[in-house]
Amino acid sequence: MLYLIGLGLSYKSDITVRGLEAIKRCSRVYLEHYTSILMAASQEELEHYYGKTVILADRELVESGSDKILSGADKEDVAFLVVGDPFGATTHTDLVLRAKRQNISVEIIHNASVMNAVGSCGLQLYQFGQTISMVFFTENWRPDSWYDKIMENRKIGLHTLVLLDIKVKEQSIENMARGKLIYEPPRYMSISQCCEQLLEIEDKRNAKAYTSDTPAVAISRLGSASQEFKAGTIQELVEYDAGEPLHSLVILGRQCHELELEYLLEFADDREKFKADVLKDQEFFKPAPWVPPAEEDSE
Amino acid sequence: MLYLIGLGLSYKSDITVRGLEAIKRCSRVYLEHYTSILMAASQEELEHYYGKTVILADRELVESGSDKILSGADKEDVAFLVVGDPFGATTHTDLVLRAKRQNISVEIIHNASVMNAVGSCGLQLYQFGQTISMVFFTENWRPDSWYDKIMENRKIGLHTLVLLDIKVKEQSIENMARGKLIYEPPRYMSISQCCEQLLEIEDKRNAKAYTSDTPAVAISRLGSASQEFKAGTIQELVEYDAGEPLHSLVILGRQCHELELEYLLEFADDREKFKADVLKDQEFFKPAPWVPPAEEDSE
Repeated sequence: MLYLIGLGLSYKSDITVRGLEAIKRCSRVYLEHYTSILMAASQEELEHYYGKTVILADRELVESGSDKILSGADKEDVAFLVVGDPFGATTHTDLVLRAKRQNISVEIIHNASVMNAVGSCGLQLYQFGQTISMVFFTENWRPDSWYDKIMENRKIGLHTLVLLDIKVKEQSIENMARGKLIYEPPRYMSISQCCEQLLEIEDKRNAKAYTSDTPAVAISRLGSASQEFKAGTIQELVEYDAGEPLHSLVILGRQCHELELEYLLEFADDREKFKADVLKDQEFFKPAPWVPPAEEDSE
Repeated sequence: MLYLIGLGLSYKSDITVRGLEAIKRCSRVYLEHYTSILMAASQEELEHYYGKTVILADRELVESGSDKILSGADKEDVAFLVVGDPFGATTHTDLVLRAKRQNISVEIIHNASVMNAVGSCGLQLYQFGQTISMVFFTENWRPDSWYDKIMENRKIGLHTLVLLDIKVKEQSIENMARGKLIYEPPRYMSISQCCEQLLEIEDKRNAKAYTSDTPAVAISRLGSASQEFKAGTIQELVEYDAGEPLHSLVILGRQCHELELEYLLEFADDREKFKADVLKDQEFFKPAPWVPPAEEDSE
């Protein structure tokens, strides 16, 4: 059996009881280690907690070396651990398909991920549109296809979850060229940098998908003891120091209900200003006033 | 301390280790019991598992009697358990705000909910638009405001998660009129009924937000041992007997990537037909072909 087990967001004890019981049965335990990190527990702590050796699985192992992971899983139990949920922001459907083709049974043990725990900022999950990813801009690579997606979401009034880039086990181009297997220290995008990149692209595109006054919610260390939310405009969040990673961001849509706003105000420095910013932003993409359709009366 | 603790989707052991540890510290334990049910565990089983009495909290208690729940939570620990995640489909932000106003500390212990576990059908979570709820139609009440939301999602190519109605502890109008406190047996909407209602409203609105040939994924008993997925058109799913509750549905959007489709084909009765249905459906809301913008060259 191959178990795909979500670890949740932060603590080692965020694993489900069922997940932990499954790990105890496994002869090999892999931890997916390139799309996210468990904030409050190191590899050693996890090994101690599980009573098992934990093998770190980088992108190469998962994408090209999956036969290694699946080896023997038709006869013994193997666990593949994923921070958050196995079908969260990065889905591991490929590994599942490969397993099935080798007649290996697969069991998924779900957990919270940023995709649903983001609801704890007070915005309703069913009011979110598509999720976007913000990557670190480089001198020559400043991708902005996410801009259209924010526009699409905001046109229909929806909130946008922005996932911020994580660079783990990356090589510099220099070291790669020299054939040196030296990894750069891990990098995690900050809310401030994300907001800067948002404003740079709005400046370039200038289609008013959002403005520097558009309200947003900064989310840091979601699900951990030091979790923090900050409500402010994108411009205000450029100046915001959110501290340690991991960070995410939600750009508000027009459909911000009263109860959602009331909850967000708890996280605003200046409640009156934030309220005014939200009201002002709701003028964007405002639909024409509703006119009762004459046809329906005759039904 | 007030703990809001997600129970996950199905098994009693789907609770996180941290959640279970918190319950053990609590002097009172409430279970929210009107928006969802834990499929594989009864109240008695939970009580035995936790070693605590579990008080069922109906809508009335949570919405009007929250002072009872919060009573003493500034001095002792109280748990409020929610199937799925406390900020999933139904958010309990109101209870959190009330607690904060009484200077009661609140800790959220997240878990998987349908809002993220739906990813296990193989569709990418970041390609989902707003979520809709389908209620039981009655003779005089057949609300269809969700139709516009499906249209909005599909216009920009996104998938739509449809949450199906649950009626727990409802009174019949007759018994209510007679002042008799008799509750109807719980009812859970089936995928088949949901698809019927979808087609009825498409028939009435006729704006082609979707058609009877639009592909969808039926999800039954998500996260449980008897979990099942079925890929088919809405018309095909009218005929589909998905068995025991709980059920949900995903209506596909145009942005169905190759890997998503490959995964879905595992759940189709007739793979070639489903593939053809998806390709045909992708013609809906297809944007005009892309023309390189002349301006960008000059930058």
